[in-house]
Amino acid sequence: MRGKFITVEGTDGAGKSTQMDMLIKYLEEKGIEVVVTREPGGTKISEKLREIILDAENKEMTDTTEAMLYAASRAQHVEEKIIPALNEGKFVICDRFVDSSVVYQGYARGLDMEMIESINKYAVCGLVPDITLFFDITPEAGIARKKNMHQLDRIEQEKMDFHYKVYNGYKALCEKYPERIKRINAENDIETVHKDVLAAVEEILK
Amino acid sequence: MRGKFITVEGTDGAGKSTQMDMLIKYLEEKGIEVVVTREPGGTKISEKLREIILDAENKEMTDTTEAMLYAASRAQHVEEKIIPALNEGKFVICDRFVDSSVVYQGYARGLDMEMIESINKYAVCGLVPDITLFFDITPEAGIARKKNMHQLDRIEQEKMDFHYKVYNGYKALCEKYPERIKRINAENDIETVHKDVLAAVEEILK
Repeated sequence: MRGKFITVEGTDGAGKSTQMDMLIKYLEEKGIEVVVTREPGGTKISEKLREIILDAENKEMTDTTEAMLYAASRAQHVEEKIIPALNEGKFVICDRFVDSSVVYQGYARGLDMEMIESINKYAVCGLVPDITLFFDITPEAGIARKKNMHQLDRIEQEKMDFHYKVYNGYKALCEKYPERIKRINAENDIETVHKDVLAAVEEILK
Repeated sequence: MRGKFITVEGTDGAGKSTQMDMLIKYLEEKGIEVVVTREPGGTKISEKLREIILDAENKEMTDTTEAMLYAASRAQHVEEKIIPALNEGKFVICDRFVDSSVVYQGYARGLDMEMIESINKYAVCGLVPDITLFFDITPEAGIARKKNMHQLDRIEQEKMDFHYKVYNGYKALCEKYPERIKRINAENDIETVHKDVLAAVEEILK
């Protein structure tokens, strides 16, 4: 039986990593084999592209280049890692997927949405997540959390205005795909958020 | 006045570099400022992508990823370097451009031609070469020349069948765009080829 594909989305500092760890533990205790991955990245080639995309020195990168690198990284990831794992019956949990491109490049940078959708259509070979968890936290609260953790990378350095466009982009996608995208209130305490995650994931475990 | 955009195409070992050097010298002696560049590459970011594309270790790279990396590299190159130079009235001579993607990924690897054309449409921002010089040499003759020069890279290691698909792809493009693409017999001696190049370029110098 084909495994399930779960993607995790949200603005920076929404607590995605912590919640992913808890979800993985829960699924593995149920005897489900889980492959955990992330975008941009997830394969050797995709990780090399991730370095280039996130490198703070690459300030001259154009929006179109950035969008295409995300798509290139994704094409490699989907074909080399995600689809084979799903075909072996494993669950795949992926930190960011196409929604991130639509939100960051489309809604936030204002790139041609038709371009984003067109290049990603080729990148994913028809793959759509069974469920997407959107961790909802205001940009202020998210960035404040991240600043305590490490040096900000190129994307994180963007102005607050940009983060609000991202945030509103996610809200728009939630309205557009209410069946697939489950909104999780990420400002709650860790245990409450975890319970909400399990409630959302329960549907695809039936 | 806007400068002219000249692209140079052909299978490996066609003698493009030598002929480009001779053409540059000719144009500079006429007082024309020339920017020489190449694809994949041409900017700091594009050169990083070039390394990844050509690295013989990246054998697992999927065809879609490769096509998207060429397009990403091109998008950066066009916006950061080629269009600004043309706008300053300079001539730009570029070793390989969109035709290479159409030929190598489309005709030779058999990728969806609609995808190649679609992603490259976004990459070039409407830029079309004023003239394209196609250096025509049979794959056998071309590869034989290259082997004497250096270690073969990932693309050059492909089988002869692949090189013939590339070669026939170029022939098809010559028929499709007879106005833009000028076929140069690259099996002739260096001076004869150079004369043919000048005859072809003369048109856009008027």
